[in-house]
Amino acid sequence: MAVIALDAMGGDHGPSVVVPAALAAVKAHDKLSVILVGDSASIQQQLGSLSESITNRMRIEHTAQIVEMDEAPSQALRYKKNSSMRVAIDLVKEGLAQACVSAGNTGALMATARFVLRTLPGIDRPAILAELPTCKGRVRMLDLGANVDSSADHLFQFAVMGTVLIRAIDNIPHPKVGLLNIGAEEIKGNDCIKRTAQLLSESSIVNYVGYIEGDGIFFDDVDLIVCDGFVGNVALKTMEGAAKLIKCYLRDTFRRSWYTQLLGLMVKPVIQQVKKTIDPANYNGASLLGLRNIVIKSHGGADIKAFTHAIEEALLEVDKNVPERISRELAVLFAEE
Amino acid sequence: MAVIALDAMGGDHGPSVVVPAALAAVKAHDKLSVILVGDSASIQQQLGSLSESITNRMRIEHTAQIVEMDEAPSQALRYKKNSSMRVAIDLVKEGLAQACVSAGNTGALMATARFVLRTLPGIDRPAILAELPTCKGRVRMLDLGANVDSSADHLFQFAVMGTVLIRAIDNIPHPKVGLLNIGAEEIKGNDCIKRTAQLLSESSIVNYVGYIEGDGIFFDDVDLIVCDGFVGNVALKTMEGAAKLIKCYLRDTFRRSWYTQLLGLMVKPVIQQVKKTIDPANYNGASLLGLRNIVIKSHGGADIKAFTHAIEEALLEVDKNVPERISRELAVLFAEE
Repeated sequence: MAVIALDAMGGDHGPSVVVPAALAAVKAHDKLSVILVGDSASIQQQLGSLSESITNRMRIEHTAQIVEMDEAPSQALRYKKNSSMRVAIDLVKEGLAQACVSAGNTGALMATARFVLRTLPGIDRPAILAELPTCKGRVRMLDLGANVDSSADHLFQFAVMGTVLIRAIDNIPHPKVGLLNIGAEEIKGNDCIKRTAQLLSESSIVNYVGYIEGDGIFFDDVDLIVCDGFVGNVALKTMEGAAKLIKCYLRDTFRRSWYTQLLGLMVKPVIQQVKKTIDPANYNGASLLGLRNIVIKSHGGADIKAFTHAIEEALLEVDKNVPERISRELAVLFAEE
Repeated sequence: MAVIALDAMGGDHGPSVVVPAALAAVKAHDKLSVILVGDSASIQQQLGSLSESITNRMRIEHTAQIVEMDEAPSQALRYKKNSSMRVAIDLVKEGLAQACVSAGNTGALMATARFVLRTLPGIDRPAILAELPTCKGRVRMLDLGANVDSSADHLFQFAVMGTVLIRAIDNIPHPKVGLLNIGAEEIKGNDCIKRTAQLLSESSIVNYVGYIEGDGIFFDDVDLIVCDGFVGNVALKTMEGAAKLIKCYLRDTFRRSWYTQLLGLMVKPVIQQVKKTIDPANYNGASLLGLRNIVIKSHGGADIKAFTHAIEEALLEVDKNVPERISRELAVLFAEE
């Protein structure tokens, strides 16, 4: 039985998303048990409104505090020791849960997880890994925002951690790893990127296939893309923004006349289908890699389906024992140095 | 009369795009004269196949060499002194043209322009500025790939140069300037970004409005976005990739059945309209800001319409005397320091 602690108060929707998502996940997975951490009245209210025969695999851990979405991580760490986020992480620390999922404040989650759970030996700061849609399926990418000044050593560690995760989770024995870079010839990357490329090509752990550019994220044949957290976060949000922009343009253009409005109605199922393919819900659940335990960050605005996906990502990582595997590979790596 | 030197051999299509684009631009603008630099036979062939009454404002400067798209900039600089790119830039240096437009190798163009024309006092390296589509119209952004390790001082200079250009070209007296950053609270940017924000908020030249995130590029109310060239290049290409990905998904989805194929045909004009709005051709022509003269980089794959747009961007900058204005503002800035 895998036990996963859920921060029921996190995200834009709190228990109204987390509780139904938990129910869906528990229904779908026999060996999953969840601890709903948060205000017991609010959680109970959500549970009550749902039919349930499986609540023996769900229990509530009452907490009185909430970490606000815009709260400073240092504040949360110091003054919110009875928050749903903190207690969910504490449950993992105490061994009462094997993973934690939160849609709350990213900075606070990162700081708290790092403080309570600690990073693996040799890792300074966890890196954020997530899945993105591509023309052929999907690709995983890290770091998406935790490390804003990554050295070549850091980027190399990201590649190792991502490789191990993909081997474990996706059953790809030698995941292809690309390094995000820019195109123009003379100015092909900075020194850090060049040194990282050197480290990666010499590695026996990482199957390094070379540089990829921004548009290559969606079209190149790789399983993992490695980048600095600043660059990765900008790329991720630019992608989201570009998709939203195209959606706006389509909507505005379909609104122009009664004829295009009619066309818009007819074509809606097709557009919906495309939206479904790139729906962030299908990709929700970013891993904080490099911690001694499993922590999954859900998008703050996640809906029930998306949060369920994040829980399932946590379950997979528990099943595959991801941190333990990463730890082993890193130990070998640091022993070699 | 403005004289613009065109690298007729640059880009994926060479004279077959550059010559008709030159003709279109000369027809549209009475006060424009162009010098077509490249293989005279190939250029003549293109000119011959077109009706022309305005060729008195077009002349050919024959050159025997071509800078290849994948050639190392240092090679081009050393061994291609009679290339179309180099001679077009030389014409500007000699005062025989007021601007140069090339769709050739970006690195070589950058290196050659910097070597031949020199940067303005206090500027190490030109920054690449281009326009992007947004939900409300367009925004300009720099640097898009020339400077891959920008300091806070560099980013600040980009903001000044971009501000002056927008004031001159777009007639916006106080362009709103945003600084590209990432979202998560604790990890809001690196030290360089924080120092840049400080510099920008203290500036009397720049109307700094704050941080913007990747998705904000398309939705925030700013006229100029400032970022490091590595980050900017990744963002630009990620945007292009995301748009291409959505196009692929739409095409694949419309192909699924005879009914959706029919729908696809009906809806084609709407999709075309949207494509037209975000068509890179409408935004083609990146400025190499910080040089003593005007150099415009066209996309390598530009079509006739797109290359014409790049020529018109050059013409505007000649008209508005952009380098001179930037030089003046920078002089004030460095005098203050």
